[in-house]
Amino acid sequence: MKFKIAILGAGNVAWNLAPALEDAGHEITEVYSRDIRKAKEITERLYATDPTDDLDFSESKAQIFILAIKDSAISEVADEVILPEGSILVHTSGAVPLDILGYSSASYTGIFYPLQSFTKGKKMEMDEVPFLLESEDEETLQKLKKLAKSLSPMIYTVRSKDRKAIHVAAVFASNFTNHMIRIAEEIMRRQGLDFEMLKPLIIETISKSLQLGAKKAQTGPAIREDYETLEDHHRFLNYNEELAEIYRLISQDIIDS
Amino acid sequence: MKFKIAILGAGNVAWNLAPALEDAGHEITEVYSRDIRKAKEITERLYATDPTDDLDFSESKAQIFILAIKDSAISEVADEVILPEGSILVHTSGAVPLDILGYSSASYTGIFYPLQSFTKGKKMEMDEVPFLLESEDEETLQKLKKLAKSLSPMIYTVRSKDRKAIHVAAVFASNFTNHMIRIAEEIMRRQGLDFEMLKPLIIETISKSLQLGAKKAQTGPAIREDYETLEDHHRFLNYNEELAEIYRLISQDIIDS
Repeated sequence: MKFKIAILGAGNVAWNLAPALEDAGHEITEVYSRDIRKAKEITERLYATDPTDDLDFSESKAQIFILAIKDSAISEVADEVILPEGSILVHTSGAVPLDILGYSSASYTGIFYPLQSFTKGKKMEMDEVPFLLESEDEETLQKLKKLAKSLSPMIYTVRSKDRKAIHVAAVFASNFTNHMIRIAEEIMRRQGLDFEMLKPLIIETISKSLQLGAKKAQTGPAIREDYETLEDHHRFLNYNEELAEIYRLISQDIIDS
Repeated sequence: MKFKIAILGAGNVAWNLAPALEDAGHEITEVYSRDIRKAKEITERLYATDPTDDLDFSESKAQIFILAIKDSAISEVADEVILPEGSILVHTSGAVPLDILGYSSASYTGIFYPLQSFTKGKKMEMDEVPFLLESEDEETLQKLKKLAKSLSPMIYTVRSKDRKAIHVAAVFASNFTNHMIRIAEEIMRRQGLDFEMLKPLIIETISKSLQLGAKKAQTGPAIREDYETLEDHHRFLNYNEELAEIYRLISQDIIDS
């Protein structure tokens, strides 16, 4: 089943999603951005799609409208956009509830959330991206499933409550792991040491964690309850109170769990 | 330059290091463990090495003695071991100071610290392992460099003060990233959700972090200062006070840095 799709947004998600949808055989009718030059950056990568900065889509041929914009703008754009009769409006956010689309002119609403970290300029293989889908309308959900399946084998139907849990888990698994690496970078830089020497350890740790599960993969002073080293490290971090407290709290949680 | 080497210990490091040293052309004269069956597990993987549970090495032909045992046992074994004249004793720990070997019968001491997470039963490619070396004796340091270079191109000479900083950084980069994944696993499990759906995100996050640096790679509600989502997530984690506090503290540190 092929769809006609309009993309609203021109950020990291839109940059990756639009060509992937086209490659999967769907037709991208329009790409919208407030800044039309940004919309053009994306339509340039497509066969025959119009860039637009106009939210009046009453004449659009699209059946599905994908809101791929930052969370804080979803509500406003959803309220303003003028959609044709029978259209489906979805957003791509992990954090924003479905009912925020309830005041839009869409006939049906849903969520089409690719659970991945996208970067403009770096093509992501969509068949490795899990898609989390939600709709209160069964027929809409079936259409979203068909659309997602044309991109990836990893399709999950989730409830809003689950999507929140997944988003919180994703913050730990992604943003917070990244911040732990950030802190390690800073500790090395402060001492004039080469961060490169930690990279093999990080790669091995993550690979082991994903293969064995993080509980079995854990090593280090906290899991060994090596209080002498823990105290020594805590003292070392004295120069930054927040850092020392993060060290203490995570170590304690490793000991407790 | 080929060395005759005795390995004291039969854990994850010894299991990986002994065959790698043999493959690099060195001779492993003995493998010691308090439990001789464990020593045999390792000598079975070598050409002609004696397992032993005796710490009297006065008759050993080895020139370098590698203490690959848990941190808390290093001091005791170093004090007890009887070594031949002219021998070098090193340990493989990131956390234990060099001077702990000062009361041993070794003529020279040093540190031979492979900065990696080893697992018994899973062969690690040593050429991807950084070796951190330390000795107060210049000739000993040169020998350790030659030994390490026979295994890996990643050789660093570090001072004890640096080694501590590296160890603290490694705890953040390895143990704490792993614990963030552990927490994510728990959040998903508690909600009856499949952790598999987070794996592609984790792999992409780490890959981006190591390529761009963690500061540039950061995404999510904290770096966006999206206080509404932060509060919402904090409320979601109410069921576990420690977890909620970890969420708050790391988010705050992302905002501050």
